[in-house]
Amino acid sequence: MQRMKWWGWGLEDHAFTHEDKPALAPFVRERIGVDLAARPAAAPPRIADLDVPPPVLPGALRGALTDAVGERWLSVDDHERLVHGRGKSLRDLVRTRAGDLGRLPDAVVAPADEEQVVAVLRAVLDADAVLIPFGGGTNISGSLEAPASEERPVVSLDLHRLDRVLEIDEASRLARVQAGTFGPALEQQLTARGWTAGHFPDSFTHSTLGGWIATRSSGMQSDKYGDVAELTRAVRVVAPQGVVATRPVPSTSTGPSVREMVLGSEGRLGVITEATIHVHRLPERREILAYLLPDWSTSLRAMRAIAEAEVSPSVTRVSDAPETAFSLATRKAPRLKDRIADVVLPRLLGRKGIDPERMCLAFVGHEGSEAHVRRERRAVARIVGEHGGLAIGASPGRLYDQKKFDTPYIRDFLLDRGVLADVSETAAPWSALEPLHAAATDAARRAADDLGARLYVMCHLSHSYHAGACLYFTFAVRPTGEREPLEEYDAVKSAVQQAFVDHGGTLSHHHAVGTEHARWLEQDLSPAGVALTRALLTGVDPGRNLNPGKIVGD
Amino acid sequence: MQRMKWWGWGLEDHAFTHEDKPALAPFVRERIGVDLAARPAAAPPRIADLDVPPPVLPGALRGALTDAVGERWLSVDDHERLVHGRGKSLRDLVRTRAGDLGRLPDAVVAPADEEQVVAVLRAVLDADAVLIPFGGGTNISGSLEAPASEERPVVSLDLHRLDRVLEIDEASRLARVQAGTFGPALEQQLTARGWTAGHFPDSFTHSTLGGWIATRSSGMQSDKYGDVAELTRAVRVVAPQGVVATRPVPSTSTGPSVREMVLGSEGRLGVITEATIHVHRLPERREILAYLLPDWSTSLRAMRAIAEAEVSPSVTRVSDAPETAFSLATRKAPRLKDRIADVVLPRLLGRKGIDPERMCLAFVGHEGSEAHVRRERRAVARIVGEHGGLAIGASPGRLYDQKKFDTPYIRDFLLDRGVLADVSETAAPWSALEPLHAAATDAARRAADDLGARLYVMCHLSHSYHAGACLYFTFAVRPTGEREPLEEYDAVKSAVQQAFVDHGGTLSHHHAVGTEHARWLEQDLSPAGVALTRALLTGVDPGRNLNPGKIVGD
Repeated sequence: MQRMKWWGWGLEDHAFTHEDKPALAPFVRERIGVDLAARPAAAPPRIADLDVPPPVLPGALRGALTDAVGERWLSVDDHERLVHGRGKSLRDLVRTRAGDLGRLPDAVVAPADEEQVVAVLRAVLDADAVLIPFGGGTNISGSLEAPASEERPVVSLDLHRLDRVLEIDEASRLARVQAGTFGPALEQQLTARGWTAGHFPDSFTHSTLGGWIATRSSGMQSDKYGDVAELTRAVRVVAPQGVVATRPVPSTSTGPSVREMVLGSEGRLGVITEATIHVHRLPERREILAYLLPDWSTSLRAMRAIAEAEVSPSVTRVSDAPETAFSLATRKAPRLKDRIADVVLPRLLGRKGIDPERMCLAFVGHEGSEAHVRRERRAVARIVGEHGGLAIGASPGRLYDQKKFDTPYIRDFLLDRGVLADVSETAAPWSALEPLHAAATDAARRAADDLGARLYVMCHLSHSYHAGACLYFTFAVRPTGEREPLEEYDAVKSAVQQAFVDHGGTLSHHHAVGTEHARWLEQDLSPAGVALTRALLTGVDPGRNLNPGKIVGD
Repeated sequence: MQRMKWWGWGLEDHAFTHEDKPALAPFVRERIGVDLAARPAAAPPRIADLDVPPPVLPGALRGALTDAVGERWLSVDDHERLVHGRGKSLRDLVRTRAGDLGRLPDAVVAPADEEQVVAVLRAVLDADAVLIPFGGGTNISGSLEAPASEERPVVSLDLHRLDRVLEIDEASRLARVQAGTFGPALEQQLTARGWTAGHFPDSFTHSTLGGWIATRSSGMQSDKYGDVAELTRAVRVVAPQGVVATRPVPSTSTGPSVREMVLGSEGRLGVITEATIHVHRLPERREILAYLLPDWSTSLRAMRAIAEAEVSPSVTRVSDAPETAFSLATRKAPRLKDRIADVVLPRLLGRKGIDPERMCLAFVGHEGSEAHVRRERRAVARIVGEHGGLAIGASPGRLYDQKKFDTPYIRDFLLDRGVLADVSETAAPWSALEPLHAAATDAARRAADDLGARLYVMCHLSHSYHAGACLYFTFAVRPTGEREPLEEYDAVKSAVQQAFVDHGGTLSHHHAVGTEHARWLEQDLSPAGVALTRALLTGVDPGRNLNPGKIVGD
């Protein structure tokens, strides 16, 4: 199978380029003073140049693991250990590129089925070793790396061989799926029979169902299909106490929810091997429409009005003015049609009284029957109109839809040029969103100013709910060179996260806690709330053999 | 405040009568051989006749509790201890009526606020006593009674003084509400400002928000408003580790869900003092329409088709043929209009080919704008029509809506006449519902036949979801007199519950585990799943001071 780059995002032969986007280089130069035309500062590293420490794998453990999965599926190879050593956070990429490999796993195993997972866990527990489950390796919260101080053998359990849709219960609209199934393989197996799971996170092409569950993932169409916590109706987990197997019932009153303990458990309760998830018939029609709204405050009010209306869009997304400007700067060289639009648009904006410097680009998606999509589209267009917005048709939405999985590649492109770009996302009640947005943006700017670093920060609302929404921030720091770049990145990232919890938001809407966000957990859930989580994790895994250090620290 | 009867359901001056329902007595005589006209076999018990054991409350504990809540709000009175001794399960009522009072609490305290709850919990933990939180006392799963063998002092903590809506965040459609708020007080405070929580369980008039959360309650309009697990966005809980306070964020990725640990915790993690819940603007229009469908199998298919359609009803409910017959038998003496309908209806049924012996009564509710209700009603009517059903208008739905909270009174009425009636409910995937219904009905009948007891068993589908529905069974046993009546009741109840877990259902959709359902928990969640729950409960409350014995036994 095709693996991701061990030092960056995505496939080896795939990269972001600015060359077909004429407005991008001037934009980046103006905003953070970086010349994209200049030769990249950094080249991809080579394994041969790295100092990869040899694995430490006691014979008995090695024997037991080999018995569990077979010789072929146990690896102590440098490349395998590198790939499985951590996820793809900015910190991960910067350290890996610098040759700082962290505490690599000593072995990587790839069991064929749940029975083999049980055998691997038994071998690990018998040897008092450490087990870290591995799906696609896209986590950006530090959920996949062993603690630097870990002295016991570390085994990475790669689930990619558990890659099948086992059953579709068509009457119940449920599919039983193995946890190592990657996004594209899942959709391929489902669409072949007329179904979709509708779960499309940014990481879709490189992440697995088990990883989505272990981190409480959310997808671009979760407004309709639900976050993974909602669409996952049952789980199977290989835990020290045996195989946890909940039932795919639509609702239940069986005490504290075991299903919701497994969701977000980041490998600390065991290895998720299977889940039963909601599936939907492929919609007759699917449309994402674009709108321009006059400003951010109005945009939030418009999105709230849509959430309160009798409509159920599949996508609700609106970028603030800085992200709207960035989006426009990444457009490809305009075709004739677009050149005409470029002439017409300013006139329409002028007529609407929309200031191009403050305008916000929104996407609202609809899925279902022709009649349903038509009705909902009309209702949304009316709401946008009432908020002074302008409908700009289906082409930008189509483009967004096609390119939605390419965004993460930009980070490596910028990193090659010395720019540290990353994301932080939160969710909060509707009433908190505008002050939270202002506070997070200000905090990032203040942090960058204090360092003397150039910064670009932008945001979009990415999911709407009854009582609030997700705000998704992206920021790019051009380090000063006066300190370690990660130190300057940390100052900005921490300022944003602190603003989240200080202004009614959660530390993360869908990227999990890992080690990156653990220090805000008590502020988010209260110290006593974290004590509940800790009681659960410690009770299930008193020996700290299961992905120790994540979520609550240790 | 008006308390429920300590020996039955509801208010002292309120009871069910058959006298205005001319068809009921013949129906009951025919189906289970009981003569409603005969003098009731049992009269309500009197406290004076009971042997109430004196409370055992060590002086230090009494002093600390008095310091916590004040003299006035600490009671060791017989009546208070009786009211707080257990809930309203059939077993509770039968035993209480027979003078078997169980392990009564030694004291009842009613704190004024969260701070006082903290002080009560501290006093209880310091004394190694037992604390059992008490909302409205309507639980029917044995969640409120101390274990018979409990030798430590038992304190019942009544939350009725925490009865206020503290805040409505109108932009976010969230209300912050104290946990002791009863259903009617909640709706009164909300509707005064144009809002509703939309949560209407059968117990609504006598149950509290905190009780709903602690047992994962569901309401009649949960199809629209969500089960309590969904509409509860944040909780505050006084736990041994401090006050757990989660944030009212619409979605979050902060590890295993603490909110979902508290939901269904039945007092085992602490005392729920407050929650932030979804509220909705009062709808412009509200309608419940009635339909007759040809048979149960078709009814299930019709409900599934509605769940799959682009509509979002507030109520989806359909009774099987036995329950439909019972509903018709409880109609009041017909007015002229109804007498005309009685003539017309058989003709319409005949024309549709609907057999009155097999027909099923359905209710589908709609809420929202006039246009929305009209559109959805039309769509549902079309689906019902496609399934050979007949629309019979809004009057039956209005009647159902008015009388919906009276159902539990029937149980006492029957108990007075020696008949043991109870409910068991489950949820399962759509594909499992028809076999599960047949299996549970057969199991109940077989169990009654084995005893030689008369039985009536009936069922309705009460909530629809994407992937399944809730089935709600009611059964009435006329004991043989050859054994303890509860023994015969147990045989039937157990047969039904066992059929649930044997056929893909959960042990309860919304009545909790308590002690009544604890023995099916491992079959439902798997032994390892229960081990997770146990790890949580034991970790938070190692001394078993918080409502011991519930959910997982001990």
